[in-house]
Amino acid sequence: MTSTHPLYDVLHGRRDVRGQFTGEPLDDDVLHRVLSAAHAAPSVGLSQPWDFVLVRDAGTRRAFHDHVRTERDVFAATLTGDERQRFSRIKVDGVLESTLSVVVTYDADRGGPSVLGRHAIADAGLYSACLAIQNLWLAATAEGLGVGWVSFYREPFVRDLLGIPETVRPVAWLCLGPVTHLEDVPDLERHGWRVRRPLADAVHSERWPTASA
Amino acid sequence: MTSTHPLYDVLHGRRDVRGQFTGEPLDDDVLHRVLSAAHAAPSVGLSQPWDFVLVRDAGTRRAFHDHVRTERDVFAATLTGDERQRFSRIKVDGVLESTLSVVVTYDADRGGPSVLGRHAIADAGLYSACLAIQNLWLAATAEGLGVGWVSFYREPFVRDLLGIPETVRPVAWLCLGPVTHLEDVPDLERHGWRVRRPLADAVHSERWPTASA
Repeated sequence: MTSTHPLYDVLHGRRDVRGQFTGEPLDDDVLHRVLSAAHAAPSVGLSQPWDFVLVRDAGTRRAFHDHVRTERDVFAATLTGDERQRFSRIKVDGVLESTLSVVVTYDADRGGPSVLGRHAIADAGLYSACLAIQNLWLAATAEGLGVGWVSFYREPFVRDLLGIPETVRPVAWLCLGPVTHLEDVPDLERHGWRVRRPLADAVHSERWPTASA
Repeated sequence: MTSTHPLYDVLHGRRDVRGQFTGEPLDDDVLHRVLSAAHAAPSVGLSQPWDFVLVRDAGTRRAFHDHVRTERDVFAATLTGDERQRFSRIKVDGVLESTLSVVVTYDADRGGPSVLGRHAIADAGLYSACLAIQNLWLAATAEGLGVGWVSFYREPFVRDLLGIPETVRPVAWLCLGPVTHLEDVPDLERHGWRVRRPLADAVHSERWPTASA
């Protein structure tokens, strides 16, 4: 792997961070590079349907964190036995400890009435917002920062909290900031929640495999 | 920008390719690195809900291309005047010219009944598949390859064509392979379809901006 592009170290070293945020300040130039990376993502019909709300306010973050804790309990209640035990050891967000939050949204009205390439696939614009998120995540990793995607929340709650209009959809609540380190192994694998599947199981030739494959 | 991570050159140099594919063969090692990059993406609950169907068969690609041409005409019929003119100059796929196609799918059943982090946001698994796509795209760019996301298609057509079960959703049809070059400016901007918006318009502090902002 030594002769491959340094991008691969970033891709494979990237982690979903919950527990390693330091809360140290983030340089404006670095934040600008990371957001510029997100903004350089491909988008259907060049619609660039994403927005980035930077949340530093302690009150807002506390309110979100409290909501996440509630949703965490909702999920925990669906689990039983071993699974419930394992889940209880897993930290699901670093909202309070990270330097700031970046809320990524999707605006279906962006790009005019005729979004080239979206007429047949309504979700194509939503996909674009996700591509921006991954760009942001990789750039942050290259900068030595951590990113944690929090998904224990209800969209209407985030919409209300940040004044996001009905026509705009919150896609991700990302925690961002300096970290002590990135773990070698994903949290959920370290805590015995799941083991990553081999790539070979995900790659198929020409067609979807038949049941026997 | 000279002191920043080489990742940024890839992020900003990446393009959505239609017209620059050469069709030259792709080294197996390179393809493996690119697919490994996709497979290293983050996923909700570590569910890794993506699959990659590699389509090289000329008949399959021809059938898909014919379908794309039909859908292109459907979209063209919704346009009028200048817009229709501009669209007529834009090539929407490189399915036949590229070395192979990679069809990325999303399987909502992957990861067991309790996908950690997906109980509140049903689309979170779909988002994961998109993150894998962006990893693939960037790795391919770092390898000097081109990627083109074709979105002029109906999902049921692709499902039928590749034998994809009802429970699995095709998310992207990607053209992949060596290219003569990557353009400096996105095709849609070069052809006057749209101009990219400034990053500053997409970044907001603390809350969604009020109407006057």
